[in-house]
Amino acid sequence: MRLQAGAVRRRSEPASQEVVRRQNVASLLRLLHERGSLTRSELTAATGLNRSTTGALTTELAALGLVRERSGGARSGVVEVRGKGRPSLVVEPVVGRVQALVFDVTTTGVTAAAVGLGAFVLQIRRRLFDRDPQDVAGVVETIVGLAEFMLARMKQPATCLAVVVSVPGSVRQPDGQVRRAPSLGWSEVPIARLLSEALAARSGLRPTVLIGNDGDLGAIGEHLRGAARHHQEVLYVRGETGVAGGIIVDGELLKGRGGYAGEVGHLVVDPGGPLCRCGARGCWEALVGNTAIIRAVGRDPGISDIDDVLADVAAGNRRALAGVRRIGEWVGVGLASLINLFNPEVVVLGGSLGSLYPAMESSVRSAVGRALGPTLENVAIVRSELGADAQLLGGAEVAFAELLHDPVGTMRILGGSAPAPVASSDVRAASSQ
Amino acid sequence: MRLQAGAVRRRSEPASQEVVRRQNVASLLRLLHERGSLTRSELTAATGLNRSTTGALTTELAALGLVRERSGGARSGVVEVRGKGRPSLVVEPVVGRVQALVFDVTTTGVTAAAVGLGAFVLQIRRRLFDRDPQDVAGVVETIVGLAEFMLARMKQPATCLAVVVSVPGSVRQPDGQVRRAPSLGWSEVPIARLLSEALAARSGLRPTVLIGNDGDLGAIGEHLRGAARHHQEVLYVRGETGVAGGIIVDGELLKGRGGYAGEVGHLVVDPGGPLCRCGARGCWEALVGNTAIIRAVGRDPGISDIDDVLADVAAGNRRALAGVRRIGEWVGVGLASLINLFNPEVVVLGGSLGSLYPAMESSVRSAVGRALGPTLENVAIVRSELGADAQLLGGAEVAFAELLHDPVGTMRILGGSAPAPVASSDVRAASSQ
Repeated sequence: MRLQAGAVRRRSEPASQEVVRRQNVASLLRLLHERGSLTRSELTAATGLNRSTTGALTTELAALGLVRERSGGARSGVVEVRGKGRPSLVVEPVVGRVQALVFDVTTTGVTAAAVGLGAFVLQIRRRLFDRDPQDVAGVVETIVGLAEFMLARMKQPATCLAVVVSVPGSVRQPDGQVRRAPSLGWSEVPIARLLSEALAARSGLRPTVLIGNDGDLGAIGEHLRGAARHHQEVLYVRGETGVAGGIIVDGELLKGRGGYAGEVGHLVVDPGGPLCRCGARGCWEALVGNTAIIRAVGRDPGISDIDDVLADVAAGNRRALAGVRRIGEWVGVGLASLINLFNPEVVVLGGSLGSLYPAMESSVRSAVGRALGPTLENVAIVRSELGADAQLLGGAEVAFAELLHDPVGTMRILGGSAPAPVASSDVRAASSQ
Repeated sequence: MRLQAGAVRRRSEPASQEVVRRQNVASLLRLLHERGSLTRSELTAATGLNRSTTGALTTELAALGLVRERSGGARSGVVEVRGKGRPSLVVEPVVGRVQALVFDVTTTGVTAAAVGLGAFVLQIRRRLFDRDPQDVAGVVETIVGLAEFMLARMKQPATCLAVVVSVPGSVRQPDGQVRRAPSLGWSEVPIARLLSEALAARSGLRPTVLIGNDGDLGAIGEHLRGAARHHQEVLYVRGETGVAGGIIVDGELLKGRGGYAGEVGHLVVDPGGPLCRCGARGCWEALVGNTAIIRAVGRDPGISDIDDVLADVAAGNRRALAGVRRIGEWVGVGLASLINLFNPEVVVLGGSLGSLYPAMESSVRSAVGRALGPTLENVAIVRSELGADAQLLGGAEVAFAELLHDPVGTMRILGGSAPAPVASSDVRAASSQ
């Protein structure tokens, strides 16, 4: 990311200057969102803009309520060297001014987070379902209840940027219809519409509601904030009741024609193998999903859950360890195919596969060794850094995308403070509100 | 692709004006390369530039020897309507002025083509190997012999833009080392260097030599010139001794970290299945590659080849038809996984799988039906339009990329004619040569 330093110096084109100024405001905010607090000197160095321009843009972001400045006492070593005696102010994001409400729906319950600028998790709550998640109204009720709870606890002034819901299923964009989510028992559920209606009826709120596939949001989370930072070719796999995947190609999420790409759980790895909920035989998730793992350690999936398996493994139970290693072979068979197809830099394992990876690493790596030499070179297989937060932080990044693209325009729509004029030629758009 | 019509009108910035002019020259040439001959009126309409600018850019391309103008008699119906009585000149690419020499290496021999602007195939030759292709020197000799043959038959003045070689293996970029090509018996073969040295020694030529994976080049060929035109999400599969693949994501070739992505032949579809040359069991190519097909129809792969299978099928041999249908089931199992992963708009089958598709279509479609509903929606499975020319035309597009990006600069390096000055402020770069 580079600020457009050259273009702001032109004087004859007010319209394009206004565009460039708003782009620079956006780039400054993105920098603070990605790196956290920075001194004005660091901002100047990172952007290539001059000191006074950086100051003016910071003032504008401060007027929007998105950043604040404080004296740089805490980092005085840096400040004294660069500031020539005058301490450089530290610019920090106001993390709670705008927040995303993100919900991760799994078969067992909903985890919810309020996430602010800089990916700060300001609140986090979890509620287990007391009914079958196939009861869509019950899931909507759980989400709305969590939303109300968190909204009531937001410090003012705070604005809800968007509500984002991660779902283990195929999601149609842009209307957020869940086409199928077999582990929830959902088919053609207009969850975005149902949730919007329920929020409006219950709280009078009409936020933007976005629905994402859990694998996609997890991949975005790990790519921007977790184990796959600094990588442009990423394969993310989350073990749950199903197996979700998200694939980052050249820094961008792989979507395919309808946005349904990345269904790694339905890679057929054993055509004569067990029946999958999707109707096919030997899908990867039928072999390495939570039910298969629970069975492999000799437990009954109707009684035990994946936490029991984790406890068995932690206790050194030999039957459990052997079962997990056998699962690891199938994990490796699938990964070998995926590595041959995508030639990723890093494979990030989340969910149960991430939790159990230490116990299955040797068998995974042995089976992954079947991939072709060139595609296998330098690929790292790592555990998720974010764990269950990957979907929450990925969802928050999706919610923040519009604000980071155009803070001035987005805050105007959200009803934020009016931007302070920087120079007379810069206020055209701002004064028209 | 849009010409940068706005920017050329500015008068105060000669440096950026020169850049924009060269971009406009490039865009005009690309338009002619993609669509063939166009009248000046059509060029003006397609670019949004004014008539005199289009004329000046055309004159510049003509001076480079890349296009010529002729009166539009053959298309007078169009011309009379648009030209207000004065016939619009037809601008056509000079297809032979610059040519790519492209070679498709398979296990049985080399097909070579000289390809000009507009993807016109000007010459095409095929030579079968009389030695095992593992003898790299023999393959280099075959390619150099074909190159000399074609160079001698080029009409003057013609310039060889680049030599491109399609290889069934993993190719390292940018040095064109073949890391592995099991069907040729190659491992770590520096084919680009060997070929450059042989061309220099034998013909005194030092062209750019580019090496590409056959699946990747086939995908590019079908995407730009064949069955996947107008599609941005494409899965290309070529059946040969191995099974090659190339994947177009959002209009761009999927490369992965090292450029090795798209190895669909080593998707593991049956872990207990036959041994693959790569060392793994049950790779897709072990089940649907030519050897498997020849066996499935009851023939001996040591004696028969895929043409015998095609003849059996054409003759309606029932054992052959049943065998091909069984192969089709495995083709469908692999495609179902790939469709779940990539959610493509179109799957293009080339090589033996394209040739045999009519005989296996029902079993392929039945097995593909295992893919998830949403990923399967609207996906078309079609035969290659280009057949064995897909690699040749894809390779030519790679060779032409640099010329189409900057015709003025590229022709100067290649020793083309000097560009004619368009206006006094435009000749800075041209006059410095």
